[in-house]
Amino acid sequence: MASRSDTRGKPIRCKAAICRKAGEPLIIEEVELDPPKAWEVRIKILCTTLCHSDVTIWKMNSGAVANKYPRIFGHEAVGVVESVGEHVEEVKERDLVLPVFLSECGECRDCKSPKSNICTKFSNGLIDYMPRDGSGRFRDMNGEAVYHFLCVSSFSEYTVVDLAHVVKISHDFPLDKACLLGCGVSTGLGAAWKVADVEEGSTVAIFGLGTVGLAVAVAAKQRGASKIIGIDLNDQKFEIGKGFGVTDFVNPSTCKDKSVSEVIKEMTDGGADYCFECIGLASLMADAFNSSRDGWGKTVILGVEMHGAPVALNPYELVRGKIVTGSLFGGIKPKSDIPLFANTYLDKKLDLDGFITHEVGFEDINKAFDYLLEGKSLRCIIRMNHH
Amino acid sequence: MASRSDTRGKPIRCKAAICRKAGEPLIIEEVELDPPKAWEVRIKILCTTLCHSDVTIWKMNSGAVANKYPRIFGHEAVGVVESVGEHVEEVKERDLVLPVFLSECGECRDCKSPKSNICTKFSNGLIDYMPRDGSGRFRDMNGEAVYHFLCVSSFSEYTVVDLAHVVKISHDFPLDKACLLGCGVSTGLGAAWKVADVEEGSTVAIFGLGTVGLAVAVAAKQRGASKIIGIDLNDQKFEIGKGFGVTDFVNPSTCKDKSVSEVIKEMTDGGADYCFECIGLASLMADAFNSSRDGWGKTVILGVEMHGAPVALNPYELVRGKIVTGSLFGGIKPKSDIPLFANTYLDKKLDLDGFITHEVGFEDINKAFDYLLEGKSLRCIIRMNHH
Repeated sequence: MASRSDTRGKPIRCKAAICRKAGEPLIIEEVELDPPKAWEVRIKILCTTLCHSDVTIWKMNSGAVANKYPRIFGHEAVGVVESVGEHVEEVKERDLVLPVFLSECGECRDCKSPKSNICTKFSNGLIDYMPRDGSGRFRDMNGEAVYHFLCVSSFSEYTVVDLAHVVKISHDFPLDKACLLGCGVSTGLGAAWKVADVEEGSTVAIFGLGTVGLAVAVAAKQRGASKIIGIDLNDQKFEIGKGFGVTDFVNPSTCKDKSVSEVIKEMTDGGADYCFECIGLASLMADAFNSSRDGWGKTVILGVEMHGAPVALNPYELVRGKIVTGSLFGGIKPKSDIPLFANTYLDKKLDLDGFITHEVGFEDINKAFDYLLEGKSLRCIIRMNHH
Repeated sequence: MASRSDTRGKPIRCKAAICRKAGEPLIIEEVELDPPKAWEVRIKILCTTLCHSDVTIWKMNSGAVANKYPRIFGHEAVGVVESVGEHVEEVKERDLVLPVFLSECGECRDCKSPKSNICTKFSNGLIDYMPRDGSGRFRDMNGEAVYHFLCVSSFSEYTVVDLAHVVKISHDFPLDKACLLGCGVSTGLGAAWKVADVEEGSTVAIFGLGTVGLAVAVAAKQRGASKIIGIDLNDQKFEIGKGFGVTDFVNPSTCKDKSVSEVIKEMTDGGADYCFECIGLASLMADAFNSSRDGWGKTVILGVEMHGAPVALNPYELVRGKIVTGSLFGGIKPKSDIPLFANTYLDKKLDLDGFITHEVGFEDINKAFDYLLEGKSLRCIIRMNHH
């Protein structure tokens, strides 16, 4: 269909998987996509995957997000630059790029500080439109505006993304693995390497063995952690987890008269050095905190709490030198850290193969939802079939 | 009375301020004090002060602590070594020492790690007896055992303290200032310098302007913080606080339709870099957390929660890169850090004079309680009158 030379500066007609109502299957439709404005990049998506955050928002049938339909979901993806808007010099046509949900403007106080990855220039909470001007770029065949999602909207053959949300990676990087680095896997790697800074010989407890939790395990193993305990309600996750570095397993439903934290304290001689909450449940965040050791135990909160419930911490536990730290996207600065992670993979110091459990063509995108909802998949690669 | 040469190895009779019932005035009585056992030190107290933790426990009229009478309170003090037990080589007779509530055995995994100050060898929660053998050293004139307090019991002319709780300081250090370093002031200094590591130009919010909070202010000022906001219900604390480095003041009761955290976020362009809770109230801990900035805002919990209430943190605030860290004794290792603080004072880089608001003789020790309960004093020096 659209090729570079004849589309630059013009709208593109392409296929997108549109969600027209919360919780309903996506429908592949034709959409029209504007050319990129200043500081924007139009990307030809090659591969995308489905992350839990897509499903969480897709399921919500009340609140502000439930009114933002039709919408194009998707925020883990890789593609090539089709064209760029005015002022864009950082990437050029044909570059391989990841569009990511978290911005890095490089200019604000947070972007300039090594301590923060919460870009304040674009942290306006706008997940439904382009971040810079608050408008959209997609229309359906009736001319109706189609909402964006998390500044990415990768369930489309083409998408427009702000330059602050674009990460350039090496042109020869395998596409399916590149896709993984766009959200979940990078979140786990960042949490273990940057936020916790797990060191050799330390003990690690991971609450929730989905893609994010297993990425924490991979990262902890790479650092030489002596014990990596996985906590999950699904016993099958232990066998799966072993392949990612998990050495021990606790199923909270079979702890009998003991709490999870008591069991973990026994396994680690007083509490784990590092605990990671990778689900997004306030009660589990408290369990993770209670499982950390006195003196220096650090709990990293990665999950976004699903119900808005407060995290209740026992102040007597806290005062004994424990640390709780939240992190978005594993504390990584996308433009600087994702290429580092990619290099670690290319240097064969990081194994990403296990995260890809399924693959479907774009036309079967709803199967990716089924796999994730049934707990069968970690990541299902969705391949675009550009002609 | 007792002099070094004729008391070594024998019990000492001396005066102590005994509390016989929760919340009742102390009574100066004669007590008999055993000689130090192995790894113990008998100290002739020269000055002591009253800290809020003494008053908190003294007031409690239910629970386990309310049954531990008669008891000798006091845990901020300075004295000279009268005699030492077997194996004690670290200090000798006539050394100037501070007995402190937190142990530092130097041998356990925590003491050996730079990350922790929670000595695990003696962290058995025994605050009523000697930490090593769980027995007492004091008896009253009827032969009844008198409970210790926080391994110090400094409201006595002499006391016996485990070597792990003894800090040696320079012999020419002024006694009244030395006393201050035994608990509250060191807690504030440690929290700002070690736990938060406040840097030049940063913004600081201090919840509660008692001795601990004002010590945080002194430490933050010394580091060159650009804004030091004090939060207190007592308006007079602003004038007092200015002398310690407080630059701005918020009284939560006059914030009208805004929350304290909203006010502080306005004053600091998005939230303070460092927030300190110095009271011990779960709701204030949450306020402090909410007042910290996204990306790297760190909240240090110094106060021991009074009612056992959980600290409720908003997970959506947490996930944006905020950090909460608890600390006991400001994260300091007593034997290594208190002498450093003392040197900072001797180098005239730390002003401790303002913390001493009152002074009484030992016979008037109950006046120190009155001053603190009335909110009139920061620290009241109680001088022993050895003959």
